Amino acid sequence: MVQIKELGAGVLRNNRMMSDGRTIRYYDSQGQSRQAIDQRPQEEQPLIGELRLDPLLNEWIALAAHRQTRTFLPPKELCPLCPTQGAALTEIPESDFEVVVFDNRFPSLRPPETGWNLPEINGPDTRVAPAAGVCEVVCFTPDHGQSFADLSQRQVRTVLEAWRDRTSELSKLDFVRQIFPFENRGEEIGVTLMHPHGQIYAYSYLPPKTTQMLLAATQHFDETGRILFDDLLAREIRDEVRIVAHNDHWIAFVPFAARYPFEIHVAPLIPVADLTQLSPGACDAFPEIALEVLQRLDGVFNIPMAYIAAWHQAPVREGRDLLRLHWQITSVRRAPGKLKYLAGSESAMGAFIMDMLPEQSANQLRSVVLEK
Amino acid sequence: MVQIKELGAGVLRNNRMMSDGRTIRYYDSQGQSRQAIDQRPQEEQPLIGELRLDPLLNEWIALAAHRQTRTFLPPKELCPLCPTQGAALTEIPESDFEVVVFDNRFPSLRPPETGWNLPEINGPDTRVAPAAGVCEVVCFTPDHGQSFADLSQRQVRTVLEAWRDRTSELSKLDFVRQIFPFENRGEEIGVTLMHPHGQIYAYSYLPPKTTQMLLAATQHFDETGRILFDDLLAREIRDEVRIVAHNDHWIAFVPFAARYPFEIHVAPLIPVADLTQLSPGACDAFPEIALEVLQRLDGVFNIPMAYIAAWHQAPVREGRDLLRLHWQITSVRRAPGKLKYLAGSESAMGAFIMDMLPEQSANQLRSVVLEK
Repeated sequence: MVQIKELGAGVLRNNRMMSDGRTIRYYDSQGQSRQAIDQRPQEEQPLIGELRLDPLLNEWIALAAHRQTRTFLPPKELCPLCPTQGAALTEIPESDFEVVVFDNRFPSLRPPETGWNLPEINGPDTRVAPAAGVCEVVCFTPDHGQSFADLSQRQVRTVLEAWRDRTSELSKLDFVRQIFPFENRGEEIGVTLMHPHGQIYAYSYLPPKTTQMLLAATQHFDETGRILFDDLLAREIRDEVRIVAHNDHWIAFVPFAARYPFEIHVAPLIPVADLTQLSPGACDAFPEIALEVLQRLDGVFNIPMAYIAAWHQAPVREGRDLLRLHWQITSVRRAPGKLKYLAGSESAMGAFIMDMLPEQSANQLRSVVLEK
Repeated sequence: MVQIKELGAGVLRNNRMMSDGRTIRYYDSQGQSRQAIDQRPQEEQPLIGELRLDPLLNEWIALAAHRQTRTFLPPKELCPLCPTQGAALTEIPESDFEVVVFDNRFPSLRPPETGWNLPEINGPDTRVAPAAGVCEVVCFTPDHGQSFADLSQRQVRTVLEAWRDRTSELSKLDFVRQIFPFENRGEEIGVTLMHPHGQIYAYSYLPPKTTQMLLAATQHFDETGRILFDDLLAREIRDEVRIVAHNDHWIAFVPFAARYPFEIHVAPLIPVADLTQLSPGACDAFPEIALEVLQRLDGVFNIPMAYIAAWHQAPVREGRDLLRLHWQITSVRRAPGKLKYLAGSESAMGAFIMDMLPEQSANQLRSVVLEK
């Protein structure tokens, strides 16, 4: 394991071993030294789960039966994502950090034995497989009370470097097919730890949404010779009414056919397949638009909005020229006291009903007056 | 409009006009006369919404911007689904009823002008269309405080006759492609009216899950010459460990690759395409297993479980020989104080992670001791 590596924007990565064999990676912009030892007793690692095929939809379901016991809304003084202070030993041995990424203690997916292969899909008789993959936790800041929207531009830049580094490293694992950095924010959507953090899932199978995006992009390419996402972006720029924010390298818009009351897609103007391909200029311009978009979201009702912020990347081994990197932020809040629920039509039929025009929510987002 | 029609099991249907032109249908087992006039002032009907294509996934999204104002958790004395008592005029003009189905006052989908056609899918340039379809409300009982699991077998039999009648009638509309009777139960999943009721959506497009089921069933048929759902059912019967209940005509099981902590599929043993094709014997045997399954679900934690109960039927005009009628009941409750949320992996990637083995939840459901 390379311990120290120099990344973009002056960020140093420092890999350390945790007491149970998991890895923690410190991403630092000030060249800090990271020597703290994990003082916790060793802990047995959970077994790998199962992948079972739902033949009705041809989708893999990951079963991770041990996760029922995972940490659930602990009080602040027991937060496992704060830096270690004195005897309160947390997931992060150091007494301070900028950004860390560590292997999830309760992973839904785990690295498999070598020689693992995804079984062929074969109806109800499809073979069960180990739930191969990687699950990591990304801590955005040591400050328990902050949220992503409170970070400085420098901090967001370091988070971006961490996402890029993990995408690059995870892409090298032969069992990984798709890498998915994301953040769940808000108890309303089931967040079990309030400390500002995200996660990275590296799947050993194509997730259903990626499969579907790849199918649509392939059809569009076969019919027109053009890249679907590029056409879509051109259309949003032409229509203009749903644009929420932009700078020289990025654009943020409410998509024409949004599914959620507040939904923002953020895309680089020069298209790339994944985070590792972003130019230095695009990387440096990301913090500004990311913070603006999340601050606008919190500003709509002047309350912290529950959201899912999801990086869609081209898969690791296929469709590299057809799918484009973009960041989808979706919020289920439709009014201060009201959430949008995925009930019968959405959940069982996949048919989304939207109560709000995308043009209207784009307008609300643009109208938020930001503190400078 | 045929006003009175005789259906199965001695049920009479009585169609009446509401003051704003909507239709209410009374389903009665005792030959009741239904003459009450809707005394409410006329109300302007909402305009039809829009269908917009999400080209990234090739899915239609229905926009119904007027629904933000719909009735939201009214107190019991203002419940619009109770029978009309004195001056409290509700959606049901009669002072009593057994089962009624009426046109939704806040429909997401509405019947279109004649000559309507679903636009061809054409990437980001796909034409917008009127959100064609039909939305109806099914009241299961006049008793505000009951739930489906509290109904008598006779009442469930009448509800089934109403679902069958509506499926038959809606199938005749040339713009309808899929008919979806369902129930959302519980505030946890966003129910806005507590009176026991379900809904029927008749879509003018194939909902994404139906499209996906049809694709999987077609592939399986092409490869094996067999019907996917029949093979799946044979496998569940063979495995036995996930069966929750059965009788001579129906079987209820937790599927091998369940997505939710408690998920039960109920299917007739003699396969049919939709509700209208059920034999009289299967119809008469349904109430027993339906009530048993829902009572077991409420019994697991001894609290009313939030659930979505969704009828999957073959679409009206395609795949009639490939898709099979079944009833999927999914619950997001994984423990008395804990819900399963669809966060990043499920919502943004469509990749479900299950914390509980289906064999384990089937065992919990079987172990519930039912009151007789």
